[in-house]
Parts: sequence; C-alpha cells; structure tokens
Amino acid sequence: MEKLVGIIMGSDSDLSVVKGATDMLEELQIGYEAVISSAHRTPAETKKFAEGAAKRGLKVIIAAAGGAAHLPGVVAAYTSLPVIGIPIKTSTLSGVDSLYSIVQMPGGIPVATMAINGAKNAALFAAQILALSDTAIEERLKQYKEKMASDVIKKNGTLQQNGVDGYLKMKEGK
Amino acid sequence: MEKLVGIIMGSDSDLSVVKGATDMLEELQIGYEAVISSAHRTPAETKKFAEGAAKRGLKVIIAAAGGAAHLPGVVAAYTSLPVIGIPIKTSTLSGVDSLYSIVQMPGGIPVATMAINGAKNAALFAAQILALSDTAIEERLKQYKEKMASDVIKKNGTLQQNGVDGYLKMKEGK
Amino acid sequence: MEKLVGIIMGSDSDLSVVKGATDMLEELQIGYEAVISSAHRTPAETKKFAEGAAKRGLKVIIAAAGGAAHLPGVVAAYTSLPVIGIPIKTSTLSGVDSLYSIVQMPGGIPVATMAINGAKNAALFAAQILALSDTAIEERLKQYKEKMASDVIKKNGTLQQNGVDGYLKMKEGK
Amino acid sequence: MEKLVGIIMGSDSDLSVVKGATDMLEELQIGYEAVISSAHRTPAETKKFAEGAAKRGLKVIIAAAGGAAHLPGVVAAYTSLPVIGIPIKTSTLSGVDSLYSIVQMPGGIPVATMAINGAKNAALFAAQILALSDTAIEERLKQYKEKMASDVIKKNGTLQQNGVDGYLKMKEGK
Amino acid sequence: MEKLVGIIMGSDSDLSVVKGATDMLEELQIGYEAVISSAHRTPAETKKFAEGAAKRGLKVIIAAAGGAAHLPGVVAAYTSLPVIGIPIKTSTLSGVDSLYSIVQMPGGIPVATMAINGAKNAALFAAQILALSDTAIEERLKQYKEKMASDVIKKNGTLQQNGVDGYLKMKEGK
Amino acid sequence: MEKLVGIIMGSDSDLSVVKGATDMLEELQIGYEAVISSAHRTPAETKKFAEGAAKRGLKVIIAAAGGAAHLPGVVAAYTSLPVIGIPIKTSTLSGVDSLYSIVQMPGGIPVATMAINGAKNAALFAAQILALSDTAIEERLKQYKEKMASDVIKKNGTLQQNGVDGYLKMKEGK
Amino acid sequence: MEKLVGIIMGSDSDLSVVKGATDMLEELQIGYEAVISSAHRTPAETKKFAEGAAKRGLKVIIAAAGGAAHLPGVVAAYTSLPVIGIPIKTSTLSGVDSLYSIVQMPGGIPVATMAINGAKNAALFAAQILALSDTAIEERLKQYKEKMASDVIKKNGTLQQNGVDGYLKMKEGK
Amino acid sequence: MEKLVGIIMGSDSDLSVVKGATDMLEELQIGYEAVISSAHRTPAETKKFAEGAAKRGLKVIIAAAGGAAHLPGVVAAYTSLPVIGIPIKTSTLSGVDSLYSIVQMPGGIPVATMAINGAKNAALFAAQILALSDTAIEERLKQYKEKMASDVIKKNGTLQQNGVDGYLKMKEGK
Repeated sequence: MEKLVGIIMGSDSDLSVVKGATDMLEELQIGYEAVISSAHRTPAETKKFAEGAAKRGLKVIIAAAGGAAHLPGVVAAYTSLPVIGIPIKTSTLSGVDSLYSIVQMPGGIPVATMAINGAKNAALFAAQILALSDTAIEERLKQYKEKMASDVIKKNGTLQQNGVDGYLKMKEGK
Repeated sequence: MEKLVGIIMGSDSDLSVVKGATDMLEELQIGYEAVISSAHRTPAETKKFAEGAAKRGLKVIIAAAGGAAHLPGVVAAYTSLPVIGIPIKTSTLSGVDSLYSIVQMPGGIPVATMAINGAKNAALFAAQILALSDTAIEERLKQYKEKMASDVIKKNGTLQQNGVDGYLKMKEGK
Repeated sequence: MEKLVGIIMGSDSDLSVVKGATDMLEELQIGYEAVISSAHRTPAETKKFAEGAAKRGLKVIIAAAGGAAHLPGVVAAYTSLPVIGIPIKTSTLSGVDSLYSIVQMPGGIPVATMAINGAKNAALFAAQILALSDTAIEERLKQYKEKMASDVIKKNGTLQQNGVDGYLKMKEGK
Repeated sequence: MEKLVGIIMGSDSDLSVVKGATDMLEELQIGYEAVISSAHRTPAETKKFAEGAAKRGLKVIIAAAGGAAHLPGVVAAYTSLPVIGIPIKTSTLSGVDSLYSIVQMPGGIPVATMAINGAKNAALFAAQILALSDTAIEERLKQYKEKMASDVIKKNGTLQQNGVDGYLKMKEGK
Repeated sequence: MEKLVGIIMGSDSDLSVVKGATDMLEELQIGYEAVISSAHRTPAETKKFAEGAAKRGLKVIIAAAGGAAHLPGVVAAYTSLPVIGIPIKTSTLSGVDSLYSIVQMPGGIPVATMAINGAKNAALFAAQILALSDTAIEERLKQYKEKMASDVIKKNGTLQQNGVDGYLKMKEGK
Repeated sequence: MEKLVGIIMGSDSDLSVVKGATDMLEELQIGYEAVISSAHRTPAETKKFAEGAAKRGLKVIIAAAGGAAHLPGVVAAYTSLPVIGIPIKTSTLSGVDSLYSIVQMPGGIPVATMAINGAKNAALFAAQILALSDTAIEERLKQYKEKMASDVIKKNGTLQQNGVDGYLKMKEGK
Repeated sequence: MEKLVGIIMGSDSDLSVVKGATDMLEELQIGYEAVISSAHRTPAETKKFAEGAAKRGLKVIIAAAGGAAHLPGVVAAYTSLPVIGIPIKTSTLSGVDSLYSIVQMPGGIPVATMAINGAKNAALFAAQILALSDTAIEERLKQYKEKMASDVIKKNGTLQQNGVDGYLKMKEGK
Repeated sequence: MEKLVGIIMGSDSDLSVVKGATDMLEELQIGYEAVISSAHRTPAETKKFAEGAAKRGLKVIIAAAGGAAHLPGVVAAYTSLPVIGIPIKTSTLSGVDSLYSIVQMPGGIPVATMAINGAKNAALFAAQILALSDTAIEERLKQYKEKMASDVIKKNGTLQQNGVDGYLKMKEGK
C-alpha cells in the first residue's frame, strides 16, 4: 500500500496516543509511515524527514508532540505539505502547553491543530484531505461517518429500552 | 474563477478578521465564496451551506466564530470536506473560549484549528490542501514562502546596517 | 407520568453524570425522556429532537456535553423552550472547555449553564421552572429544600456532639 | 404592566451592562423591577428582596455581579424562583472570577448562568420561561427569533452584493 | 478554654481539610468552635452564626468553602470581626473557582484569603491576630516558628550526612 | 498619631494602587508608615523593616507587590505580625502571577491575601484587626459600614425614581 | 568590542521589546550581535546562526519570540551554548502562549526562560554568566546592582519626605 | 571533586524531583552541594547560603520551590551568581503557581526558569554555563547530546522494524 501520510512524533512516549491515528488510517486502508524524531534532539533527522516528505510521495503529515511542542511547526517550516498537529496531554499542564505551542503559529506557517490527544481526528482529517482526489477513501469515510451515526442511534435505542439505570448496569456488566 | 474555498462566519463582526483570509486567497488567485450564516440564528441556512458545499464544487471550508464558537463543528457535521476553524478573539476571554469551542472536537468530526484570529493561515492551509492537486497553486505557494523568507532576510539586512536604535527609528518614521 | 423534561446527551459516556439529573427528577416525580444524540455525529436526529420538543409536550430541555460542547447551543437553535446546559468534566481540560463552549453563547440564543458536572442542579432548575405553574412540584421543591437544610443542621448537631476528630472517625467508619 | 422579572445588581457600576437586559425585556413588553442591592454591603435588603420576590408576583430573577460574585447565589438561597446569573466582566480577571463565582454553585441551589456580560440573553431566557405559560410572550419571542434570522440573512445578502471589501467599507462608513 | 476562633464550613466534606486548622489551634492552645453551616442551604443559621459571633466572644472567624465559595463573604457581610477564608480544592477546577470566589471580594468587605486548602495557615494567621493582645499565644507562636526552623535545619543536617540518595531511601523506609 | 500599620511596597509604580489603602486608613484615623523597599533589590532594608516592625509599635503590615510578588512572604518570614498582601495587577498576566505568588504560601507562614489591586480592603482588614482592642476604631468601622450600606440604599432610591435609562444619563452627566 | 552575546528574534515586531536587552548590554559594555531570523520562515538561516554561534565567539544566546514561540528551542537544538528565552507578550493570550512554548522544553534541551517581555533580565542573566570569567563585567554588574538598590532607597527617601500624596503629585508632574 | 553547583530546595518534599538534577550532574561529573533551606522558615540560613555561595567557589545555583515559590528569587537577591529556578508541581495548581512565582521576576533580578519539575534541564543548563570555561564538561555535554540523539534514532529503528503495535507490545513487556 502506497504511503500517503507521514506520522512523526517527538518521543516514543507519545506512541500510545499516536496509535489512535494509525488504527484509524488502517481502518480506512490508508498507507502511512510512522517515525520517531525530535525537533530538539534530532533536528537533522527531523529536517530530512520533512524536506523529503513530498518527494517520498507523502501528501499529508501528522506531527504529535507535548510540552513546548515545536515538532509540528518545525516540520511545517521545511515542507509545503499540509501539517496536522496533535497536542499531547502533559502531566503538569494537561496539554494546554502543547496546545498553545502548536495552535498559535505565526502568520505564514499554518499547522492544523486537533484536540489534545486527538489522534483519531488527525487521521480522519488527513483522510478528508486525501478523499478530495481519491473516491475510494471518500467512500470509506462516508461509510465510517454513517457507522458512527448508526452507533449513536443504536445506543439510543438501547437507552430507550432499558432506561438510564438499566443502561448503566449493562455498561458496567461489560 | 472557480470557487474552491467556502468561507462562513457567524456574524458580520467577524468580517474584519476574515478579510485576512480572503486577501490571502486573492493573492494566491484562489476563488472563494464568503457567507454570513450563524450556527444558532440561521441553523437552516448553515445546514444548507454545508450540505451543498461539495456539490457546489467547494473543496475546503473555512469557518470563523467567536465565544461558544459552534459554527466550524456544526458545518463539519454536515459535510465531509475538510473544515478549517478560525477562533475569533473575544472581548471577555480573549478567544480562549473560541479556541476551546473549536479545537476540542470529539472523536469522529475533526476541525483543523488555526491560531486565534489566524485568518491568513486558514487561507494558506486551504491553499496547501488545494496545492496537492493543483500545480499552479503549489507554485504560487512556493513563491509566497520564498518571498516570506526573503522579507525576513531583507529586514535582517536593514537591522545589520542600522542597528537596533536605527531600525526602530526607521519603523516609527514610517 | 407526563414527560415534561427532555434530556439529551452527546454520548453514552455522559450518562453516569446525567444520572444525577434523572435521579433528582424522579425524586421530585417529574416525568422526563432521556436520549443519546450527538450534535456532530447525528445532527439530523438532534435537530428532530429539538424541533419536536415543544410539540411532544416538553417544557424544559437539559443538554449535557463535554469538550467542544455544542449540543446545548445546537438544541437551543432549534427550539424556543428553555435549554439548560451541563458541561461535562473532560480528562484533558477538566471541563473548562465544556464550560466555555456552553456558557459563552452569543446574544440571542441563551443556554442556562450549570456547574461542571452539575447534573443535579440542572434537574432542580428545571423543576423551579415547572413549579411556576405546578403547585405540586412547587411543594416538593419546598420539601426538598427544607430537607437539605435540616440535613446540614443535623450534621452540625453531630459535629457539636462529637467534635472534629470524632466526626471524621464516624465518617470513615461508614 | 405587571412586573414579572426582578433584576438585582450589586453595584450601580453594573447598570450599563444590565441595561442590555432591561432593553430586551421592554422590547418583549415584559414588566420588571430593577434594584441595586449588594450581597455584602446590604445583606438585609438583599434578603428582603429575595424572600418577598414570589409574593410580589415575580416569576424569575436576574442577578448581576462581578468579582467574588455572590449575589445570584445569595438570592437563590432565599427564594425558590428560578435565578439567572450574569457574570460581570472585571478589570483584572476579565470576568472569569465572576463566572466561576456564579456557575460553580453547589448541589441543591442552582443558578442559571449566562455568558460574561450576557445581559441580553438573561432577559431572553427569562422570557423563554415566562413564555411557557404566556402565549403573547411566546409569540413575541418567536418574532424576535425570526427577525434575528432575517437580519443575518439580510447581512449576508449585502455581503453577496458588495463583497468583503465593499461590506467593510460600508460598515466603516456608518 | 475560652472560645476565641469561630470556624465555619459549608459542608462536612470540607472537614478533613479544616482539621488542619483545628489541629493547629489545639497545638497553640487556642479555644475554638467549629460549625457546619451553608451560605446557601442554611442561610438563616449562617447569618445567626455571624451576627452573634462577636457577642459570643469570638475574635476571629475562619470560613472554608469550595466551588462558588460564598461562605466567607456572606459571613463577612454580617460581622465586623476579621474573616479568614480557606478556598477548598475542587474536583473539577482544583480550587481556582474557590480561590476566585473568596479572594476577589469587592471594596468594603475584605476576606483574608489563604492558599487553596491552606487550613493550617488560617489557624496560624488567627493566632497572629490574637497574639497582638495575648502574650501567651505570642510566645507559643514564637516557639512554633522556632521549631519550624529547627526542623528544616535538622532535615538539612540529615541530608548533609546521607546525601540525596540516602535521604530519599530513609524517607521511603519510613 | 501613633503608627499602627506598616505599609511596604516593592516599587513606586505600586504607589497609585497603595494610595487606596492609605486613604482608607486616614479616613479611619489610623496612623501608618509607608515605605518603598524591594524584596529583591533592597533585601537588607526589607529585612530591617520587617524585623523592627513590632519594636516600632506596628501591629499589622500591609505589603503590596506585582509579578513574582515575594515581598509579602519575605516580610512574613521576618516578623510574627499579621501580614496582609495586595497582589498588584500586571500588564502581562493581569495580576494572576501576583495573586498566586502571594496567596499560595507554604504551611507555617501565612499571608492574608486581598483581591488583585484590593488596597482599600487591605486597610479595612487591618482596621478590623486593630478594632479588636480599640473601640474607637471599632466605632469608626461600624460607621463606615453603615455609610456603605446607606450609599447603596441611596443609589437604589435614585434608580427607583429615575429608572435605568434615567440613572445612566445622570451618571454620564456627572 | 568583541561580540559575546548573540540575540535572535523571530520578527522585527519583537524589536521594541528586545531593545530592553540591547540597552542593558550596552550599559554593561558587553558586545553583541542582533539578528532577525525566524524558526519557521527562515529555518536555514536560523540553523546557520545557531550552529556557527560558538565558532563566531559567542558565549550566550538570547532568543525572543511570541505565540507558538519555537525560536529559543530550535536554536538550543543546534548549539550547546546557554540559550536564554524571552517570551514576547501577544495580543490574544498576553504571552502565556509564548511562555509555555519556551519554558516547557523537554528533558535534554534547556532554555533559560525569563518573564514575559523580560528583555532586560535576559541581558542581565547573560552578563551574570559572562561575569563568571570576566571580572570587569562582574564589577559592572556589582555597580549596577548597587545603583538599583540606591535608587530604591532614594525613592523611599523621597516618599518619606513628601508622603504618598506628595510623591504621586511629583510623579505626575514629571 | 570541587563543588561548582549549589542546589537549594525549600523542603525535603522537593527532593525526589531535585534528584533529577543531582543524577544529571553526577553523570556529567560535576561537583555540587545540595541543601534544604526555606525562604520563609529559615530566611537567615538561606541568606547565608546565598551570600557565601561565590566565596565557597560555587559558579551556579539551582533553586527548587513550589507554590508561592520565592526561594529562587530570594537567593538571587543575595548573590550575583546565575540562579536557575525549578518550579515544583503542586497538588492544587499543578505548578502554575510555582512557575509564575519564579519566572515573573522584576527587572534587575533574573532567575533562569526551567519547565515545571524540569530538574534534569536545570543541571544541563548549569553544565552549559560551566562548559564555557571547562572543556572537559563541554566534551561530556557533547557526548550526552550525541547519546540523546542516537537513543532517539535507535528507538526509531526499533519502530521501523516492529511497527506501532509491535513497539507498544515490547514497551509493555519491559
């Protein structure tokens, strides 16, 4: 499968969050490469990753980082591909530091910021971009959105049948 | 010029910020439509705008809103096109309310969030998406990025020649 | 029992908080319907719920949501019934995101916002509205308020008899 | 005109914000009384205002306060009428102090909180409550909502005719 | 022992924090009364507590509350005795809500605010006030302060002897 | 007039806020000394001020500082007199930095914190402490509190006579 | 004069703040170079500046940036010289975004963060580092610190002579 | 080994965080002294520590404190050595209080602030200062930085071989 999405994270401690994105991409059958490379510890590798991204055939980049989260912005400085940023929740500031470091980019170099730990949505947004020129992905996205709706509707059906207390007991039972 | 970007804002008070996006799109020669429609005051019109966006040929949507800023999320609920959100600065909470209302979208419905009042970057990010399948836009983006760099370099040259005090006096003189 | 209060929540993960509202309504013998429907994942169902609310005989709506919590505002856009919002606590921003997304509504479309996770008070506020034209509810509310006061007074009595250390030991013993 | 809404504010410095509520009530032809009384400086008068509210025929109370904004909660302690709180913007903390002091009420004593400085919405929410048993108010609310929608639609029409730059020039010209 | 300090808390859930104050007062041999009474649930009892405080011989009042923490301010409205406020940590906003609700009192009605959960310091501050006219308390405070200093010095001695790793092992061993 | 209150501020830029305290003390006929001395720039002078305070006959200290506002805590480290802290509003963080730096004192060394820029209340709180052993001050405080209440009542009277619009016009006219 | 301090800022809009640093360095007779170079717009120039800094004889680097302020961290990634960061105040988030983006650096790559807009202190801190191996700078720093203290003492003298009101009038008169 | 770095912390509860700094210094073979001394509880000892630091041969000071974290600033008031501050995470405000109390120092007395709980970076920054005049430390820092980079590269290699799921399983297996 052709790799269309590049995923970069600053540390392997971000990987359990990032998995939310890779799982979603796999569900949508979108090829990706995932690398660990730090804006600060391995700036040369990060630069190389970003500068070569378009040439390697990538169309979108997802960058995840926490704290003084410079990775998405640094990647965006070295490529013109759309960069999607995932602010990672931090133990001290809950990810507000990550969020501000990613979303408040200066004029000229945008980073498309997702919710704190919003890895799944990063993948979905990448898919929405790819779907503009790929009807197969467009179709899978459509099905995903429909399934999402029908899941909510099904849950509501269960609630109507069992009531609030019944539903909560069922959930706990799981 | 074909309209590729849809811009929606909740109130005409957002227009002076949104102009940062329309100016940028015009500079990049990208066609757009701009409408005022509120998630809360004209929900039917907003729904219609979003549902028909893809059919009208739009590829990307930019949505600007302030306060309890639901517009980008509401639009994203009705379309699968990529939605870019601009949190508008507010007089009471400086736009932190707008930012949280836009960026913290639940799993399944992403909104690509820009900086508070980051209208220019919304346009640039839309252009980056369009550039994936439009080499003319790609070329103009490249030139824009180069010009941005050369502007910084030129300013630095002026600083080297005039020193800090000289530079500041020149700026004030302007 | 006639259903007077409509309760809507964006996800079944909100249900354990919302139970604080349904328990309170049951204690006050007020009929309600509770549904799961998302502003973003099932916008059509949510619109239908809100538009039909008054016709179904509902008098007040309680809407609970977390993160970019658009549900209360979206419901308020489709009905003129009073809408009470419950901001759900979130794992990343503790519900400040939910609070700002609900309380900072623009002029024209009010949402009556309760404390973060303040489901019990949402039910009580709904009851206060209903009590304006229903003396039975008014009476039950009065009794509830008196019981609340006498509970505090009773606890204070226990404290006076047992002292701080004694009281704390009794509490732990429970 | 019968007085149905009681408005209380802690200081006459809140009056220019509160006017947003009284103007709205007058537009909707709803009678009100407005008093200045402080939770801290005139607790006896405040208590009297709240305890007598229902007997005087009031149906809803709007309470505005800033900083350590106790007035809405103190009023709610002395009446079972629905209390709507308006957090006033403050010069130091922008009204976040007022918001937290009003919205974070403990279980048992709800205050329906509006946006910071959200006086107009306080009046509209009061009207929505009154409309439950007053079809004339219900009708006026409906017209107000329709006018609000048509205003947005009209502004959008102007934008379509004049474009972004034209619209902004017209606005400045006003 | 004569009761010089009145301690009031809004709920028995505050008691485990308030114990920090009562323990300190007992260590300094200062008599106190501690009551549970809510600003909102038992306003009459709270008013009575505050209005009678000076007559009962109290010199200082400590008031603890969380969330929309009105208790210290409400007590201060009914007495001219110095009121010391303890903002209780909350599960949603960590006590920032309590802090703002207590410290941001309007001009005219001061509340002396301690750190979030700072019950021990509330007792020490009360003691400092009492010490102005009571040399026995002054002496005990002096001894407490000296002991505090010598404890730090002793700990430092242990650190010098055992080093960082040794000290941490000893602490864990305890 | 005997000097009972010591006022210390870190910089003469705090003086216009501190004047709120000195004016109040003068109105209550309480003698004070006011000095400029920094915790960081003149630590020796600050230490001397605090260590000698009790011997000079001072009973209470008011300390005002902004930013990393260490002055109140540093003074409290060198004296056992009650220290009242005034967090000064700052241009960057609005005084939240000052507030946290003053209120979050560690166990053992309390500082009684007032609202941001709450200089008047600092003086009133000092007066409440002094009033415990000075019936003349107690009497003046009582009169001040009564005047405060009657001012509110008078303003309310004006509002009742003139209505909201009339009152606002009168205020502007002043 | 040998250039010992490198100053880098992301935009010429930071220059009026940065001037606080260059003025201080000039007062302490410390040579410096000041350049405009952006982490995002001119990443190659920034890399070159940082990589060559030590070879050009620089000993310390001061980096100023606002918003998603990556410049100090990016510079620190390319040099082992001590990097001092100045978070620039922003119009939307007052510099909290800049502060978090600079101070919350991950383990391994420190940036010594100053107050928001704290340019003067950045220069002083650079001087303190240089003073470790340069007794002339050490001496000038000592004199600066003494002058700072004597200025505070002089201002206090003026206050003692003129009183609060007199001092404020003199200040206004200036 | 000559002691070049002085480490001071306000309480032994900070020691487990501070260990991050002492471990790093030991790895870099830099001698240090570590003392417990409080700005508020043992001001005399703290003053003595700071005033004598340069004479004892220390070159840099690291000061760690939490809450109203005055220790770094107080130390900086008594020495001209560079002072590096570590804001300790707090249970109520997560260390935002500590951060603001340390970073927002007034002009004239800088404290180089690290991330909340950023003890390792404090040591690295001290080493960067020392490395300016000590080539052995410079060399060890260089090796540390290279090792840090090669660790990231090694982890990336593992990720490339095992994929996201494989990597996470290996990590859990550890």
